Amino acid sequence: MSQPVLPQRVKVVEVGPRDGLQNEKQQVPTPTKIALVDQLSAAGFQNVESASFVSPKWVPQMADGSEVMAGITRSPGTVYSVLTPNMKGFEAALAAKADEVVIFAAASEAFSQRNINCSIEESIARFEPVARAAKDAGLRLRGSISCCLGCPYQGDVPIESVVNVIQRLAALGCDEIDIADTIGVGTPGRTRDVMEAAARAFPIERLSGHFHDTYGQATANIYAALQSGISIFHSSVAGLGGCPYAKGATGNVATEDVLYLLHGLGITTGIDLDAVVRTGDFISKAIGRTNASRVGRALLAKMQDADDATCV
Amino acid sequence: MSQPVLPQRVKVVEVGPRDGLQNEKQQVPTPTKIALVDQLSAAGFQNVESASFVSPKWVPQMADGSEVMAGITRSPGTVYSVLTPNMKGFEAALAAKADEVVIFAAASEAFSQRNINCSIEESIARFEPVARAAKDAGLRLRGSISCCLGCPYQGDVPIESVVNVIQRLAALGCDEIDIADTIGVGTPGRTRDVMEAAARAFPIERLSGHFHDTYGQATANIYAALQSGISIFHSSVAGLGGCPYAKGATGNVATEDVLYLLHGLGITTGIDLDAVVRTGDFISKAIGRTNASRVGRALLAKMQDADDATCV
Repeated sequence: MSQPVLPQRVKVVEVGPRDGLQNEKQQVPTPTKIALVDQLSAAGFQNVESASFVSPKWVPQMADGSEVMAGITRSPGTVYSVLTPNMKGFEAALAAKADEVVIFAAASEAFSQRNINCSIEESIARFEPVARAAKDAGLRLRGSISCCLGCPYQGDVPIESVVNVIQRLAALGCDEIDIADTIGVGTPGRTRDVMEAAARAFPIERLSGHFHDTYGQATANIYAALQSGISIFHSSVAGLGGCPYAKGATGNVATEDVLYLLHGLGITTGIDLDAVVRTGDFISKAIGRTNASRVGRALLAKMQDADDATCV
Repeated sequence: MSQPVLPQRVKVVEVGPRDGLQNEKQQVPTPTKIALVDQLSAAGFQNVESASFVSPKWVPQMADGSEVMAGITRSPGTVYSVLTPNMKGFEAALAAKADEVVIFAAASEAFSQRNINCSIEESIARFEPVARAAKDAGLRLRGSISCCLGCPYQGDVPIESVVNVIQRLAALGCDEIDIADTIGVGTPGRTRDVMEAAARAFPIERLSGHFHDTYGQATANIYAALQSGISIFHSSVAGLGGCPYAKGATGNVATEDVLYLLHGLGITTGIDLDAVVRTGDFISKAIGRTNASRVGRALLAKMQDADDATCV
């Protein structure tokens, strides 16, 4: 049986500090966020999505983005990304010395209308000044596309809609484009089809897969995407987070589970899994949340056993 | 990119009533077990692992196997399997009118020694009379091989060890052989290698994959096994169960998650996913356990929303 060749190296973008924490109802103390970002960069991540410069009216949890960015210890090997919905957010990101700004659009017209009250076209047009300013300032620009594998409102999302948004974001100058399964409904066959269509519209080495585990398909989808040649994936330590707008859309895939998959496939990430497991334990305890990473739970149980053995 | 062709139809073997329930500390009432098996056969499963005729000293939860088998309503489309470790168990299975008996061995010498105090060879020799009696009685015979992707005691398990046990079980006349990742440590590349080696030793259409989700890899491993041509998979409704002997080996892959994967890939199973989701809810509530199926939780939340909408 012929088997597709997998990438030898994968970049894992850690989104826990932003996508993961943004919906926590209890305000997470700024020093906890700073410690989280610093532990992640120390574990070897090339890219940590660290803050969001959105209106605190919309996402109060992210109101301390400037303080987080000012407090972290910059690692020379790490790109620190922030979400910037508009020029005000961009100015704040620039002042905070972000390395990469993230703009976003939906592949689903219904999702765009229901959640940001405008069409996909209008939403992209609004990002034009941000994109231009990012380019002028020499910042990396990333474009994130939600609902590429399904929408909570319209159900199926045509692949042509995904490709259309990719083309629009590419025209804005995006260095990297995220194909997101925001509500975790995708399965591997569809993932492959979407990724292969995306790769015909944008350089595959700058496309990423952002999967949620709502339906337990995330590692299968990542494996399918790897087989299609995708070599950048997003994940969230301890499985923190979900989507604030899409009902039932809990469950970013846990970073620990993704690293276990990749390392098991012999793929290099440059990231220390044990360090990430400890960080997952730290943040889960700090915010009083059950660790949603199955690898995290399994390896923490083993570490605990080893500690117990030492005590005998 | 060339893509392997997937099977068009898959048999899902539901193991919840046996593998799933066997480690529950609280005795599950016999009528609950009967209701569980009956709901599963009604949902369309071709094969339900329904009971275990082991010594009640070893597995007290399974002591009522004869009552369960006597109480269920037989569906003509369903094969009812039971575990039979020895001739005493086999006689009970025969009296209980089981359709299929299951014998078992480990691919790991260390696991065999630690858990049943004998070598792999000795354990298989002990099953010879059971296998002969099953054949004589015209019953289906299934052989289950644990630790095919890793062992909690010895770590790696050579593929040759798996193949050796397959050959021994084939020689006993097994109609079907299960390749089990008892502790859930496998990743898709290794799964593919093991399955392809297994398929060189035994007809692929009678090999099954039994995956645990301990490290979040089960759906990825099933997808890899499908790509290798495996068309029988085991799973447990609501993710019930684990392994009583292997530390940290919680987490049979949830049936709901497997069905979602298969149906999403366009594969026919003949099983009604919504009915299985309701059964997962029933048994989780009956035994006071959190529903471990992510598809179960997501779809139950949707059903609840629909019910609420009706009430307005």
